[in-house]
Amino acid sequence: MSIRRIALTILAMLAWATSAHAQTDPLPSWNETPAKQAIVAFVAKVTQAGGSDFVPPPERIAVFDMDGTLVPERPIPLALIPILADIRDAVARTPDLGNRPAVAALLKGDHAGLHALGEQGLNDLIAAVTDGKTTEQIIANVRSLIANRPNEIFGVSYGRAIYRPMQELLAYLQANGFTSWICSGSPLLITRELAPEMFGIPPERVMGSNVRTRLDERDGKTVLVFAGHVEHLNDQDGKPVTINRTIGARPLFVAGNEGGRGDIAMMRWSKDRSGPSFQLLIDHDDAEREFAYAEPDDFSLNAARRYGFQIVSIKQDWKVVIGK
Amino acid sequence: MSIRRIALTILAMLAWATSAHAQTDPLPSWNETPAKQAIVAFVAKVTQAGGSDFVPPPERIAVFDMDGTLVPERPIPLALIPILADIRDAVARTPDLGNRPAVAALLKGDHAGLHALGEQGLNDLIAAVTDGKTTEQIIANVRSLIANRPNEIFGVSYGRAIYRPMQELLAYLQANGFTSWICSGSPLLITRELAPEMFGIPPERVMGSNVRTRLDERDGKTVLVFAGHVEHLNDQDGKPVTINRTIGARPLFVAGNEGGRGDIAMMRWSKDRSGPSFQLLIDHDDAEREFAYAEPDDFSLNAARRYGFQIVSIKQDWKVVIGK
Repeated sequence: MSIRRIALTILAMLAWATSAHAQTDPLPSWNETPAKQAIVAFVAKVTQAGGSDFVPPPERIAVFDMDGTLVPERPIPLALIPILADIRDAVARTPDLGNRPAVAALLKGDHAGLHALGEQGLNDLIAAVTDGKTTEQIIANVRSLIANRPNEIFGVSYGRAIYRPMQELLAYLQANGFTSWICSGSPLLITRELAPEMFGIPPERVMGSNVRTRLDERDGKTVLVFAGHVEHLNDQDGKPVTINRTIGARPLFVAGNEGGRGDIAMMRWSKDRSGPSFQLLIDHDDAEREFAYAEPDDFSLNAARRYGFQIVSIKQDWKVVIGK
Repeated sequence: MSIRRIALTILAMLAWATSAHAQTDPLPSWNETPAKQAIVAFVAKVTQAGGSDFVPPPERIAVFDMDGTLVPERPIPLALIPILADIRDAVARTPDLGNRPAVAALLKGDHAGLHALGEQGLNDLIAAVTDGKTTEQIIANVRSLIANRPNEIFGVSYGRAIYRPMQELLAYLQANGFTSWICSGSPLLITRELAPEMFGIPPERVMGSNVRTRLDERDGKTVLVFAGHVEHLNDQDGKPVTINRTIGARPLFVAGNEGGRGDIAMMRWSKDRSGPSFQLLIDHDDAEREFAYAEPDDFSLNAARRYGFQIVSIKQDWKVVIGK
């Protein structure tokens, strides 16, 4: 059999397998509301070969925020679990660290006090967390800490407390030739450890906040160590900057959430691409099944209405919130 | 036919097609010298299923320097073509810019004088090149400028003056389940424009030096503009820092070149991974077919001998240098 004939046979089989698969609903955890219809209509439009809105696969770039968009950001964001473990460990070894105002505030859970300490507080925290460790040492326990920590609100571990509708959306986009990325305000090195198992996204497709590192040697071997201060805060206007540096294109699809104003800049930057695009903003409005919280000025919800982003109400649009 | 049966049939066909393909020499532009043998032996070793040095495909990460490694860096590195065009354009519009010492030095080709101006000189150049443009405006002509500019040394355009042995190596690694990246000292935004057509590497797998950008608005639309100073110089110790931020792993395979000491840090960082690895250092020793140049202290060649990197002599190891 010639290579050409093999290729044609494979293509025919794949086409058959794909059409057989397409019979089932790809988003079963979504209610039949306008949000789901808008997503499905958009994907159909940009994948319609020969259509006026067709977008070739390399440009089908989807970018997802993580905390509050793929997983609940309350009671605590995922990255805080290893960060708190590292700080407690560092304070046990060097008790003086516990007297630093930022470290004391975090250990007390005083997030307002921590926020008031600004960038110096953040750099103090970074120094306490990293505490002379290499990049490889700092990530060694991230996965097991998060996989094993029970989330009492949802009755599963933190590693399994994932929004099922968003997992389905990731799979649906992938099946339609999209490539999905994470663009999180959480630390890059921690987020990247979680992405493959929790979301099926490989580590190189993760963007996050970053602490400056430098090359050093330990026992004659090269290692990367932390320089002790923030290199990039990946939130708000920082998100389009990171996406452009990492991917080099305005995303076709962006998903984020209201709550911290963090995702509007990257959504606007996506909306302003030439050609079609889709922005999805999750509204945390379900006190019963998840949490109900809002920005005091409704900045993100107002922006969504102004710029034409699709708002997704957890209460109305999701049949299931967390998969069991 | 069941999906399972289709999958098995496809696998059997692919195995057959692969073994048929393996009969031909994948590196025909390489002489039959120890360099080629070492590359082939390494690839065989890490792809041998069940072997003690087997490396699973997601870890088969290969990182290539660009200037001097994939293309000649003389008479001028690729990125200088659009940079000079932008500077001449900016000076035509704002003649005062031409009086800035760094701009004057670059336009005269006085690279030593430019180097002496240090970081301030570099930031002056960046200001002149970017000159109020958006990131999208700055890259608009990069591809055509380089594709059309004749390279008189090699009798082809700059866009086609590519080392054929290295093109074959990229294809050979890809066929063996490696994922290749570029890690260049040249500006990220320019390098990324060239990588797909010249090297078959998608834009998101390119790392380079970077100028800080910030989100702005023009006519009510979001754009990224340049903040006018260097964010990261991707050379020497800066390369492992960027690779870790971008990929999050020590590469299995690294290729670089002597001439500017730029690639030794990332090669050492690869060598110090746990398990097998391969580092390839190109020696520019062929005055007849390419160029002969060396670092005054032979820093890179000495490092290659000390740490066990494979030196590739253009003169002895390459049958063909530039493909026509």
